[in-house]
Amino acid sequence: MAKIIDGKETAKQIKAELKEKISTVSGRKPGLAVIIVGDDKASHYYVGSKQKACSEVGIESFKTELGSQASKEELIKVITSYNQNETVDGILLQLPLPDSLRSMTQEIIDTISADKDVDGLTTFNLGKLVSKSPDAIEPCTPKGCMELLKRYNINPSGKKALVLGRSTLVGKPIALLLNNANATVTMAHSRTENMSTELKEADIIIAAIGQAEFINGDSIKQNAVVIDVGINAIERDGKRVLVGDVEFVSAKNNASFITPVPGGVGPMTVAMLLQNTYELFLKHR
Amino acid sequence: MAKIIDGKETAKQIKAELKEKISTVSGRKPGLAVIIVGDDKASHYYVGSKQKACSEVGIESFKTELGSQASKEELIKVITSYNQNETVDGILLQLPLPDSLRSMTQEIIDTISADKDVDGLTTFNLGKLVSKSPDAIEPCTPKGCMELLKRYNINPSGKKALVLGRSTLVGKPIALLLNNANATVTMAHSRTENMSTELKEADIIIAAIGQAEFINGDSIKQNAVVIDVGINAIERDGKRVLVGDVEFVSAKNNASFITPVPGGVGPMTVAMLLQNTYELFLKHR
Repeated sequence: MAKIIDGKETAKQIKAELKEKISTVSGRKPGLAVIIVGDDKASHYYVGSKQKACSEVGIESFKTELGSQASKEELIKVITSYNQNETVDGILLQLPLPDSLRSMTQEIIDTISADKDVDGLTTFNLGKLVSKSPDAIEPCTPKGCMELLKRYNINPSGKKALVLGRSTLVGKPIALLLNNANATVTMAHSRTENMSTELKEADIIIAAIGQAEFINGDSIKQNAVVIDVGINAIERDGKRVLVGDVEFVSAKNNASFITPVPGGVGPMTVAMLLQNTYELFLKHR
Repeated sequence: MAKIIDGKETAKQIKAELKEKISTVSGRKPGLAVIIVGDDKASHYYVGSKQKACSEVGIESFKTELGSQASKEELIKVITSYNQNETVDGILLQLPLPDSLRSMTQEIIDTISADKDVDGLTTFNLGKLVSKSPDAIEPCTPKGCMELLKRYNINPSGKKALVLGRSTLVGKPIALLLNNANATVTMAHSRTENMSTELKEADIIIAAIGQAEFINGDSIKQNAVVIDVGINAIERDGKRVLVGDVEFVSAKNNASFITPVPGGVGPMTVAMLLQNTYELFLKHR
């Protein structure tokens, strides 16, 4: 029976540690600006949680809301203004952007100052993950996964890690972070021909494909570590429930460690956002 | 018995194609600036071949030599001057830099203008490989490997590709390019615990670890494709010979395709440098 990796509790600890550190700061507090475009309900909910978390630990938060019809130029104007605002240490653009701006996402992210790129998703920062630069900003969700491994004393060095999904946001950065931590990383995706072999051989599985319960627990290696990044809403017994990319009930029997959904990686993403804001603040002050 | 992937011949074809295209250019020709620091004999030899290749296809080449005691500032001054020179389309800093500058390599490379980064090794450009940007400049050696696969009709999509070595120069960019081409890529390295299983399962092996004949031909999968990036000088029967990271004689029996050393990836690196220079020229003119 797998040990549950409690992301909610770990995030709580990290927030308590940050609150403690920030409470000793004299003068201005760390500042995070969040920009949200359009009316996507889930996005507004996430932004709300992020702002609430900021206030819990003593980070000042700023928010700009733009309508779904906002132009690229309007959005970049907001980013530029936060770039110049000295009370702002980190700038987060809530994703996904509305359809009209979607194809320009990377170009827009790249207008965030390198030293305020709290989500670590500018092209320049992604390049630093490749060159293993010591001052790379680790994107929040991948960093959250690595932090969970660390806090549960799971050392990926030499181990076979399988990353399912290859998004710029999650899959590829986590593959690079695991590689930098000396894991032997395999990047799998929808075109992978022999997924069942990959799953059977991996010591660590990071599932980030966004498909409800794609991985059956019987298909993984005995004692594998499972980190489930997926959050998928499905209907079950007439109710709307959130499930991961891994079928939790069956995987729990084979894994040595497993993150639940919700309560696993999700809360860690927010905690790492706060952590990155604080780290950028230390560089700015 | 494996089919030999003839890099020398392929490079020759590519150069002929480029020469043809460049001959039709009216006005100024493409220009490549090469900067070399110190007296490393092999580096000077490589720079000589690159300049010779430029002249063969009609690319104007510029060269600056600095002594091994050159400072970071002197080197950056040379780069800045080429950045501003409108007859220069690409700037190549020959690596490795002398010991005194070695640790600053990435920082120095990053002073090359993004639009003259002919080797594709600036941090910003490496980030474009992660985000799969359509205007990424593919680093020359990785691009040469991909071009060999393409010209021998080897489609990596869905296939299991093993990249041995994780340098910023070769290993990591080629892993990203193979991933972008829909291969299932595993990045292996000195810490990999189960190298023999990895070797036995890979459909495509890219060897880039710089250890003479590290991979024995018996350890690979039947009909694997072997791309050998290593060039190692060893002594054999009293003579100095160049060998790859793969033991060619034994691997030839098991592989379906294999690159020889020398005459495999090496000439392709130079051909791709010319190709990238030409592509940058098209953007500048």
